Amino acid sequence: MKGFRYYNPVCVHFGKGVLERLGKEVAKIGKKCLFVYGMGSIKRTGLYDKVVEQLKSAGVEFVEHSGVKPNPVLSHVREGVEKAKREKVDVILAVGGGSVIDEAKAIAAGAVADCDVWDFFEFKAAVKKALPIVTVLTISGTGSEMNAGLVITNEEKQAKFGFRAEPLYPRVSFLDPILTFTVPPDQTAYGAVDAFTHVSEVYCNREELGADVPAGIMETIMKTIVKWAPVAVKEPNNYRARAELMWCSSLALCGITWCGAGELTLPAHMIEHSLSAIYDIAHGAGLAIVTPAWMRYMKERRKEHLKQFAKNVFGKDSIDEGIDAFEEWMRSIGCPTRLSHANIPASDIPKIAENAYQLSVLWGLSDFYTVDVIKEILELCR
Amino acid sequence: MKGFRYYNPVCVHFGKGVLERLGKEVAKIGKKCLFVYGMGSIKRTGLYDKVVEQLKSAGVEFVEHSGVKPNPVLSHVREGVEKAKREKVDVILAVGGGSVIDEAKAIAAGAVADCDVWDFFEFKAAVKKALPIVTVLTISGTGSEMNAGLVITNEEKQAKFGFRAEPLYPRVSFLDPILTFTVPPDQTAYGAVDAFTHVSEVYCNREELGADVPAGIMETIMKTIVKWAPVAVKEPNNYRARAELMWCSSLALCGITWCGAGELTLPAHMIEHSLSAIYDIAHGAGLAIVTPAWMRYMKERRKEHLKQFAKNVFGKDSIDEGIDAFEEWMRSIGCPTRLSHANIPASDIPKIAENAYQLSVLWGLSDFYTVDVIKEILELCR
Repeated sequence: MKGFRYYNPVCVHFGKGVLERLGKEVAKIGKKCLFVYGMGSIKRTGLYDKVVEQLKSAGVEFVEHSGVKPNPVLSHVREGVEKAKREKVDVILAVGGGSVIDEAKAIAAGAVADCDVWDFFEFKAAVKKALPIVTVLTISGTGSEMNAGLVITNEEKQAKFGFRAEPLYPRVSFLDPILTFTVPPDQTAYGAVDAFTHVSEVYCNREELGADVPAGIMETIMKTIVKWAPVAVKEPNNYRARAELMWCSSLALCGITWCGAGELTLPAHMIEHSLSAIYDIAHGAGLAIVTPAWMRYMKERRKEHLKQFAKNVFGKDSIDEGIDAFEEWMRSIGCPTRLSHANIPASDIPKIAENAYQLSVLWGLSDFYTVDVIKEILELCR
Repeated sequence: MKGFRYYNPVCVHFGKGVLERLGKEVAKIGKKCLFVYGMGSIKRTGLYDKVVEQLKSAGVEFVEHSGVKPNPVLSHVREGVEKAKREKVDVILAVGGGSVIDEAKAIAAGAVADCDVWDFFEFKAAVKKALPIVTVLTISGTGSEMNAGLVITNEEKQAKFGFRAEPLYPRVSFLDPILTFTVPPDQTAYGAVDAFTHVSEVYCNREELGADVPAGIMETIMKTIVKWAPVAVKEPNNYRARAELMWCSSLALCGITWCGAGELTLPAHMIEHSLSAIYDIAHGAGLAIVTPAWMRYMKERRKEHLKQFAKNVFGKDSIDEGIDAFEEWMRSIGCPTRLSHANIPASDIPKIAENAYQLSVLWGLSDFYTVDVIKEILELCR
């Protein structure tokens, strides 16, 4: 077993009706919050009104920062930072999916920083402090509600970069599976694939195969997602399916999965970031395309890992059958699994590889993940 | 899936040589610590010197409070509280197993309390604050290093009571599996049984069978302990075995196992507390006696739970075979599994039941666990 440091102080309130405690919990932390949300779906579902009622009844003032896009962009983050400073808010409340929570984290860091917020993403500065963050999750997938990471797209640079910093752990996260009943089938599937690949990437890259606890926890999460994602896609109001997916997504990237297995490494995520940065496709859709290709490319180098993946997650006796079953599962829930399915021309592969290589350098993976290697992996996505 | 609140802010440093960071981490928290340890084994192993060196090199003053007994007693806790107040320490450092850590927690609470520390155990007062706690674990088992619970014996009242309170989460816990190489075979086995039963009790009592994530995590922990405890008993210096057991023990009672499965319920632990309170036997040894008996008593009432336990943990097709396999596993690592093995006369059963009933009332389990029911369970321990 590898050594590790594990620390995750997020307080999770999970289950039906947990939102009733929102106002009280926010009021414990601050007096005035920046209420961050997305493109307005929370107004259609009635969630917006519930949140406002909670804040008002607890005597918490708020300023709104709405319009966060899927694949949240730097320009909008900067607007949020300005607003947070101007309005002197003392807590950031994110109501939405991973994009909203990630933008909230960037704002929380930027609002108390002396540098430009993008400096953090290029590792020119480190986040030492941040405003406290509270989240209400509406889409399962990224796990941002229970970790200290975030990903933001710099539109000018076409760069989708990410980092993690401990001050960015949300203080409290509210996870009511019912809030995800309205997530459409495609977004449900993309979220499931995102969570699944947070685990499968670690599982298939882990330095330490000889560690039973992390392997067992990862297999549990992957098998649970494989079982329940198709149910949630077909029956959007199935509480059990939504609940299992929600908790799996949070655990998938909370840090517990790789304790003892080695450091977190996410090469397929790294390559995918370029797809969603350039083509603005859903992150989970991009992952469904890149991950099986990455596995096929790594067949010899990760033989034992992929054998275990095939056997312990999909019950298959060979690596090829395992990867095929994984791809088939993703197609069955409506995900694209090839570049052409997402209308991305294969002729763009060199451009995508160049873009992904920037992140490869930043994440310290470029010894292996050169432009050529990334190109070869992308060729397997055709 | 059941709703839940999950919060565990302990920072765990796990692996070979993590003690090198001890002084620095303690110094971040305080200037003067109460250094709590047991009967002196840490002096024989050289750990005492290492800890002292770490504290000195980091400029942390310390006062010693040694002599903590297995099944730590209230009188010694009270001495520690007095010392902590008198010496104005600002952090408690526990170096030892669960007993030492539990006593350190009681002192941390008592040192800043207006009431007598035993009031907390009788639920006459609640712990609202405590001195910060740092732990260095030397025996795997109780999981106290990663939770907010503690158990102390009031010698006058022959009462072994416990409770949990969030201020009692250790700030930082150092888990180096090498420090457990010197744990003798019997204590290794008792620790493994303690950790195993923290999980099996939850698994076999869970309100919600329809929750895949907690079930899978619990099965992983139980299977890992079943696999590695016999190795650690036979090969005390087997790093892998010690590491798997150490991490399993910490996770077993950290809260993550029952998220989604319902509240924590520990009836066999409750009954066992009377055995170790009256006869001063090791807690794990008492659990090895009580737990299979509890399972046999509950065969009809927990049919589905026990079927899953037999199948998913021991690969057995019937409840009886599952419980037999569990008992056989414990015997194989040297645990007593009947009262007579621990020289406890069956004629004492009424007295033990009366004692356990006190805790049954305090823990709110007395609707079902009456004196008569406890007696019947104890009869199955003969």
